[in-house]
Amino acid sequence: MTSTTTAYAAHSPKAPLERTAIERRDVGEFDVLIDIKYAGICHSDIHQVDEGWDEGIFPMVPGHEIAGIVSEVGPGVTRFRTGDRVGVGCMVDSCRTCDNCKAGNEQYCTGSGMVGTYNDTGKDGQPTYGGYSQAIVVDENYVVRIPDDLALDVAAPLLCAGITTYSPLRHFGAGPGKKVAILGMGGLGHMAVQIAHALGAEVTVLSQSLRKKDDGLRLGADHYHATSDPKTFEELDGTFDLILSTVAAPLDFSAYLSLLKTDGTLVNVGLPEEPISLDLFSVVTGRKTIAGSLIGGIAETQEMLDFCAKHGIGAEIELIRADQINEAYKRVLTIDVRYRFVIDTTTI
Amino acid sequence: MTSTTTAYAAHSPKAPLERTAIERRDVGEFDVLIDIKYAGICHSDIHQVDEGWDEGIFPMVPGHEIAGIVSEVGPGVTRFRTGDRVGVGCMVDSCRTCDNCKAGNEQYCTGSGMVGTYNDTGKDGQPTYGGYSQAIVVDENYVVRIPDDLALDVAAPLLCAGITTYSPLRHFGAGPGKKVAILGMGGLGHMAVQIAHALGAEVTVLSQSLRKKDDGLRLGADHYHATSDPKTFEELDGTFDLILSTVAAPLDFSAYLSLLKTDGTLVNVGLPEEPISLDLFSVVTGRKTIAGSLIGGIAETQEMLDFCAKHGIGAEIELIRADQINEAYKRVLTIDVRYRFVIDTTTI
Repeated sequence: MTSTTTAYAAHSPKAPLERTAIERRDVGEFDVLIDIKYAGICHSDIHQVDEGWDEGIFPMVPGHEIAGIVSEVGPGVTRFRTGDRVGVGCMVDSCRTCDNCKAGNEQYCTGSGMVGTYNDTGKDGQPTYGGYSQAIVVDENYVVRIPDDLALDVAAPLLCAGITTYSPLRHFGAGPGKKVAILGMGGLGHMAVQIAHALGAEVTVLSQSLRKKDDGLRLGADHYHATSDPKTFEELDGTFDLILSTVAAPLDFSAYLSLLKTDGTLVNVGLPEEPISLDLFSVVTGRKTIAGSLIGGIAETQEMLDFCAKHGIGAEIELIRADQINEAYKRVLTIDVRYRFVIDTTTI
Repeated sequence: MTSTTTAYAAHSPKAPLERTAIERRDVGEFDVLIDIKYAGICHSDIHQVDEGWDEGIFPMVPGHEIAGIVSEVGPGVTRFRTGDRVGVGCMVDSCRTCDNCKAGNEQYCTGSGMVGTYNDTGKDGQPTYGGYSQAIVVDENYVVRIPDDLALDVAAPLLCAGITTYSPLRHFGAGPGKKVAILGMGGLGHMAVQIAHALGAEVTVLSQSLRKKDDGLRLGADHYHATSDPKTFEELDGTFDLILSTVAAPLDFSAYLSLLKTDGTLVNVGLPEEPISLDLFSVVTGRKTIAGSLIGGIAETQEMLDFCAKHGIGAEIELIRADQINEAYKRVLTIDVRYRFVIDTTTI
């Protein structure tokens, strides 16, 4: 049994998104039906529609930054009830039995692998459809609570942009006494600045230009430098304990590694489509590390939302109607957004 | 004032090494004069003679795996006396005042930088000459004690091959309950196997072929796999907490990263001459890290020598006369040595 809901979908690779009807499974014993209110547009939505990383499953309904209200719960659900303010991020299931799942690192599930919120296949063998839609059915274990202090529209992007930056900042030790650079001042970067600042670190933004400097300082950065200026690299040589790269474009990694202190770490959450070139001298000299990080676990996502509510952190958003999605995609690609498009899904 | 000693030197890039006379500085207040008994041949000696990494300073007397006997000490020397069994590794000085020097990480000196034992310029402005020589004068702070339980000839290679593997194995947590892979079974690799085993880790050798399997198991490896066999990568997927790469050749890093568990680390001590290609998906998936490590600090080098003495660890060596150095270089390049050439410097 299924129910029909309205969504925006791409019907083939690189195709514009169109209003369409999709089927959602009926609410099962442990499921929550969510009346979606807002869905953020993540750069990775465009990557997936365009098959920039891998083949996609079409029709594709993107959207893994979902905020809404619970409208129905299955009989076995214990954590949520109708009317609750909730969010869904990048995954809607995982094996639940591997060491990573048991440790709350469902995003690194080594069993069946995590089930993506869209562009994936659920345990029922059916394709998953994301948040550019009016409703979604999700197992309660993959749903998080949005605190009352967070407005739903600015909370939506936290489900990907927030947790993608919070998790590595926490894991790799951003905090008091640490000098942290945020590389890139876009959807992820503007969240990272706020979170790193709230964690107590001394925060520097490294952005291509100084165009967004006022925003960066307002959001909590202590310093702001243009990477297009060679002096930046001279001046900041050996400065940082941690650099979080939110940039998906290929970078001169040796240059950025030179900005780290001994034992410093450069963590990537941006994912270039092509392999990078790396001179190993850059890591050997100073025992430096290059790491990666992928979103965060479910409990950690809840922790991040509570942290953001406590510190008054939300995404800076531009709210759009569903019929503006294709235009918004073009603007994301030209980096013409401050800092996240959020779809008012009642307009679908 | 200087004194003359006999050495083997390359007089120009890629030239064969020849017997020659060099000047050593007089023994200063804090200096130790060492009667060199043995000097190991490190692959990096050949790299430097051949200018594989950077321009060299010629004439070049290689050798940074030095074992000998103290024959004279300066009036201010407190830690050594005539007759002591001592070693000198890759550095003979550093700034001594930067945070890294003060923390015992002289190898990452951010002041004037560490002064290499050869192919570098000392604080007196004179070129440094290495261990393929009959005597050397070194500040006592850059000299370590070789425990009585370690024969000088098998101790010599510990000063580079030993510390280069001991330091990252300790720093990145090789120990009981940890699965550690040693990539490459050469001069560095055969030391790493012994040290990782003595640290209590479960040790796997990953070598191109199974040719040295008996040696690997004898030296303490629990498992031994050929990297030329694609089944190795299927079988060992997600197995290791730590991989120590001692290989200087370009590798398929994505394939090796797939052998790591979530949060695993691949540490490089081998230094390819060309930049490597790295798919960042390989580190993002599983929050993995690629790190580098360069030799070790002076106190840590002493700790390593004491550890090796306690555990009966030494290099497996082929002792040669000085007039065999050029032939030995050729054999190192064809990987025809088990596992380290050591020069009997009394034959110079």
